Amino acid sequence: MQERYIDKNMPALISDLQKLIRQPSVSAKNLGLEECARLLVQMMKKSGIRVEILRLGKGVPPAVYGEVISKKNTSKTLLFYNHYDVQPEEPLELWNDPPFSGRMRGNKIYGRGSADDKGELVTRIKAVEAFLKTTGDVPCNIKFLVEGEEEIGSTHVEQYLEKYQKKLSCDGVIWEFGYVDEKDRPIISLGMKGLLYVELSIRESIRDAHSSLAVLIENPAWRLVEALGTLRDSNGKILIKDWYREVDKFTREELGMIAREPFDEKSFKKEYGITRFLGKKKGIDIRRAVVGDPTCNIAGFSSGWEGPGAKTVLPSSALVKIDFRLVPKMDPLKQLSRLEKHLKYKGFGDVKVHMIHGEAASRTKISDPFVRMVKSAADESFGKSIISVSSAGTGPMHSFARVLKAPCISVGSTYIYARIHSPNEFARVDLLKKTTKCMCKIIKKFGA
Amino acid sequence: MQERYIDKNMPALISDLQKLIRQPSVSAKNLGLEECARLLVQMMKKSGIRVEILRLGKGVPPAVYGEVISKKNTSKTLLFYNHYDVQPEEPLELWNDPPFSGRMRGNKIYGRGSADDKGELVTRIKAVEAFLKTTGDVPCNIKFLVEGEEEIGSTHVEQYLEKYQKKLSCDGVIWEFGYVDEKDRPIISLGMKGLLYVELSIRESIRDAHSSLAVLIENPAWRLVEALGTLRDSNGKILIKDWYREVDKFTREELGMIAREPFDEKSFKKEYGITRFLGKKKGIDIRRAVVGDPTCNIAGFSSGWEGPGAKTVLPSSALVKIDFRLVPKMDPLKQLSRLEKHLKYKGFGDVKVHMIHGEAASRTKISDPFVRMVKSAADESFGKSIISVSSAGTGPMHSFARVLKAPCISVGSTYIYARIHSPNEFARVDLLKKTTKCMCKIIKKFGA
Repeated sequence: MQERYIDKNMPALISDLQKLIRQPSVSAKNLGLEECARLLVQMMKKSGIRVEILRLGKGVPPAVYGEVISKKNTSKTLLFYNHYDVQPEEPLELWNDPPFSGRMRGNKIYGRGSADDKGELVTRIKAVEAFLKTTGDVPCNIKFLVEGEEEIGSTHVEQYLEKYQKKLSCDGVIWEFGYVDEKDRPIISLGMKGLLYVELSIRESIRDAHSSLAVLIENPAWRLVEALGTLRDSNGKILIKDWYREVDKFTREELGMIAREPFDEKSFKKEYGITRFLGKKKGIDIRRAVVGDPTCNIAGFSSGWEGPGAKTVLPSSALVKIDFRLVPKMDPLKQLSRLEKHLKYKGFGDVKVHMIHGEAASRTKISDPFVRMVKSAADESFGKSIISVSSAGTGPMHSFARVLKAPCISVGSTYIYARIHSPNEFARVDLLKKTTKCMCKIIKKFGA
Repeated sequence: MQERYIDKNMPALISDLQKLIRQPSVSAKNLGLEECARLLVQMMKKSGIRVEILRLGKGVPPAVYGEVISKKNTSKTLLFYNHYDVQPEEPLELWNDPPFSGRMRGNKIYGRGSADDKGELVTRIKAVEAFLKTTGDVPCNIKFLVEGEEEIGSTHVEQYLEKYQKKLSCDGVIWEFGYVDEKDRPIISLGMKGLLYVELSIRESIRDAHSSLAVLIENPAWRLVEALGTLRDSNGKILIKDWYREVDKFTREELGMIAREPFDEKSFKKEYGITRFLGKKKGIDIRRAVVGDPTCNIAGFSSGWEGPGAKTVLPSSALVKIDFRLVPKMDPLKQLSRLEKHLKYKGFGDVKVHMIHGEAASRTKISDPFVRMVKSAADESFGKSIISVSSAGTGPMHSFARVLKAPCISVGSTYIYARIHSPNEFARVDLLKKTTKCMCKIIKKFGA
């Protein structure tokens, strides 16, 4: 019944998604957030959802809360977590259409946010609408939490969760994203990595000097190069003492799951133009690394003259930005203090460490019944689905699991090469439709 | 006689220097070069010098040639080498007066080029004028070569020297700069270091990736950090095979000279805000390093996100700029090929090496009679002077020595902390006066 409703109402889903895309909402620029939240409120109301704007205080973007209480008097509640903010649209010159056009070309809808996360959001709203318009009820209680700061690190989501803990209480969370692979199989991801993002900086002298003085004045870029050289080996293994201390080995069940995860090496290599993987990884090692390897990545390095040609300067300072991905049981603050100790011990006590962001990893247990349920809904909707022990990315899943004490699962409509965060981001209409139907199945099974 | 003329005519010297400063001539921006050359021609003519504009072709800034043939029919010729171009004036906000104001405050004249090199140039013009206006003649033949590209690496000076070899033939060259130390002692420098300026770059993938992929995609910044780690030890010693192969040890005479060179450790440390020297150098080792150590300096490093805050990006490329200072007998091209071989041998064949600039070092022999002569002139004018075996900086001295086969010596009026190339560059009026008198003494002794 809901399926037929969805088939018939795809034009409305598409035009709602286009409306959302056409309202820019770039959190990094604090652009259009209030407007987008208001637009979303209207849209959700039209679908029959009771909506409320949540606020923390001045300067914090609002969160949109939605609710439909089932008439069945069930106590089971499903929470959809999404975000209405998007990444900055730059670089503009690489877009084929204006970034906020929402232009449809064949099976694709283009625009910033088309996939991440406005596309995901409409599939969930429309699934709830399908129940309400066809049966006048939902099989379980439904809640929505749609925040406006996901693309800048979900700065306040933990505060929202704590302030509105009771209102948001639930038995399962459908996470904001979900990828679909090259063979149209949804990847049901059960976890997210953590993150420790730091700046290491060093200042050697009070001003840039003529580089002929390099015989006498220590060069801060050299000092940073030397310090960095102690952090990691050429295969990516982190050399900081006790870095991996709390990390659990994969269970036999997880290993089995990882062995069954597909990974198309050829298309990945083609997508990024590389000829081999870090540390010459092959086969199952690639999938194990994606799910479970902590990383130490140089996200930026800046020192001295970066313009064209030759300037013979000895820089006074140097800065490197590093993001460490963490896995479960690694505490960001503990890892930070290990990093600081390491630098001191290695003779780099003059390197200043500044933490920008810290977030713990989280994984929902494979044995949780919620996992089996979501997988069977996805299998029915897509023919086949894949379970991934953890995504390689980071999000505030740990906060949800801690505050709401509910299992969190990612499942959604985003094609893995949909260029999210990049120019020409798109959503595929066929996947939006299948995913909306899949959400209906999840709601139904959850309420059963 | 000339001394009295100089004392009387200091106001004219100052106003000529101010006129030159007020004509911006920034070679890096191709700004005001023709205008400055024309102004200089007028000024030199007024002083009694026969002047000519030399040209190489379209797009190359002109050089100004000046000549006074002695009526004594002597064959001895002294060449003054200077430049009329200046460094860019940025950063503007740090100047107390506009950079091209030429404003006088007490004993100082401020402005871009006030010391480097317009100040030096006027002392030489005025010294020749002093002879012509008081005696109607000069004790030896005088030539000037004033180029317009010194601040961008003297790109065409070697071509000028070769094209006008006969016109520029001489028996001794007074180099364009000369420092005066904190105790008002001129530092007579006999040489310059060479330079090999390269860019090392690496590209790992066709586009920036989300940093969660750092488990799989090699990070180019890490590769550069690893490659750099093989180039140099933490004391600054270069680890490239055969890098020092052709380098001669100092002679006993040079060592004696270096031991007598003063170096005020305290004021140097204060000027740059440092607490110790690279490699914990002390005493004579500091002076030996300034004169004779090759360097490997990171002049710039750029990769990934360099803006504020956290961006979780895995950069697709990384770039580092390195300037290697060279000492006599090190051939820039040979050193370049050693660097390339080293990188290949160490497993960094994917690092691209691009040479931006190469210049050999040069030193005039201490035993050359020209050295003794210049020193005695400086001693008479300043009370005391210091001989330095080589400056730590680089210039086209090697080309002059090769083409003109004449000894080259730096002696001049620039206070060592005159902030050349920096905001609030200044010339000291007392040093300009003493240096003009010193130039008279050099001309007189040279013609004797």
